[in-house]
Amino acid sequence: MDAVTRIERSLAQALALAQGSDAPPALVAAMRYAVFPGGARIRPRLAIAVARACAENKPDLSSAAAASIELLHCASLVHDDLPCFDDAPTRRGRASVHKAFGEQLAVLSGDALIVLAFQSLARAAESAPARLATLISIVARATGAPAGIVAGQAWECEQHIALAQYQRAKTGALFAAATAAGACAAGADSSRWHLLGERIGEAYQIADDIRDVVSNEGDLGKPTGRDQVLGRPNAVHDLGIASAVGRLEDLVRAAIDAIPNCPGAADLRAHILGEAGRLLPREIARPAA
Amino acid sequence: MDAVTRIERSLAQALALAQGSDAPPALVAAMRYAVFPGGARIRPRLAIAVARACAENKPDLSSAAAASIELLHCASLVHDDLPCFDDAPTRRGRASVHKAFGEQLAVLSGDALIVLAFQSLARAAESAPARLATLISIVARATGAPAGIVAGQAWECEQHIALAQYQRAKTGALFAAATAAGACAAGADSSRWHLLGERIGEAYQIADDIRDVVSNEGDLGKPTGRDQVLGRPNAVHDLGIASAVGRLEDLVRAAIDAIPNCPGAADLRAHILGEAGRLLPREIARPAA
Repeated sequence: MDAVTRIERSLAQALALAQGSDAPPALVAAMRYAVFPGGARIRPRLAIAVARACAENKPDLSSAAAASIELLHCASLVHDDLPCFDDAPTRRGRASVHKAFGEQLAVLSGDALIVLAFQSLARAAESAPARLATLISIVARATGAPAGIVAGQAWECEQHIALAQYQRAKTGALFAAATAAGACAAGADSSRWHLLGERIGEAYQIADDIRDVVSNEGDLGKPTGRDQVLGRPNAVHDLGIASAVGRLEDLVRAAIDAIPNCPGAADLRAHILGEAGRLLPREIARPAA
Repeated sequence: MDAVTRIERSLAQALALAQGSDAPPALVAAMRYAVFPGGARIRPRLAIAVARACAENKPDLSSAAAASIELLHCASLVHDDLPCFDDAPTRRGRASVHKAFGEQLAVLSGDALIVLAFQSLARAAESAPARLATLISIVARATGAPAGIVAGQAWECEQHIALAQYQRAKTGALFAAATAAGACAAGADSSRWHLLGERIGEAYQIADDIRDVVSNEGDLGKPTGRDQVLGRPNAVHDLGIASAVGRLEDLVRAAIDAIPNCPGAADLRAHILGEAGRLLPREIARPAA
């Protein structure tokens, strides 16, 4: 089964846990709206690519780990779009959750998706209970305080922003969790896999900065130029476009170098290079090195 | 060690996980503010009373389970107090989190506390990993969709509110999790312990309704008369005060009857009767039956 099918199926299984005859209908609808149809599913596809590279023996657990990371990503988008943060009217080319369902259900669906990430992981780990505690720790550390995506967003509330910590938490943490959780779900030593995810996350952050400056809203499915409007750091503003693209290419090479020894290293390398080729907007894309 | 000391220590250990040199300071401060000093810690004390009644053999795990339930309760208070919900200016006798730290940090600290509940549980379960999946499931089910406290809050967004489901989810779910998690952490069969928690939760809901009508704000530490202002269901409005008090007393008796066979049933019975005696505001309290 290809990775995208596995991810969509595992997300659907997770959402089924949240559904029930006694569920408030609008909450479940808002949760589904936040998750389907998805974006590029970059993080869960990375988790599955790593699990495969580690010769996974519990593919259902790898899929659930990948899905849990996507659920947390979707939850963070819903909350980041709220009026008190970015006040984003659109996401993935249509109304953001709070525009479609109201602010209350945006808060609550984000909360419920966070819970669902852990719940679906616990359920899938029945086949390999010894891996559960590490998986929960990996995913939780990437999400909460001190250095997960919630902490990353919280740096925006500080007067003096610690730029490296901000970006590592806001973007890098969930990529590092994707590689570590993919390895852990496959029964490998997850600690060897953080660095790869961190470097991919950093590359992705720079690509996001470039897209925010260069893309048009129709291509991106969300407003562009937001970093400037919201006073957020952006690598293109700091380095200029050419140096930012160069930095992105360096990071992709550094990521490739960080792939640990594993049975499927060659396929994983190809996956990462393929993804890297999609990171830049059409306007400035070059063939990957 | 008495239950309150165990709970406060376990909460402090959990919050220490969220602290780190790389944490955004205001996020950690808001999380601590939401948790310390606490309210009556009714749910975690119930969890520990059940764990003791089940002859717990992993007290650190029982304490962590109790603390995780309190973290989720605190998170729900922070989010329920937000401007888009109750817009509550005070909580536990001082400014609510969004009044003290702003709306952004209220959203984020609630999110981070939810994550921390699962993270601290996974860490404590290192001593008994076989109990982790069930504990995560119990706690998640009580929090998310379809019927946890988040779903309970989401019923307030529906045009037609399913009253029994609303109250079972909004209040009962976390009490049922307290008894079930206390039992599970002690190595007992958690499925026998849900009913007790549900009945205590129902009693607590009625007591809360009574306090909302009868207490004054100084005693309660939060605004009173809110159910009427916010158009929320309240047993006193439906039944009158005398019948509501009678229903509360019936529920306490039904809870006592629901205590499963266990080594420490007598002590647990005494705990529940002692708690029941504290449920009613001074104005109308009678000695427990």
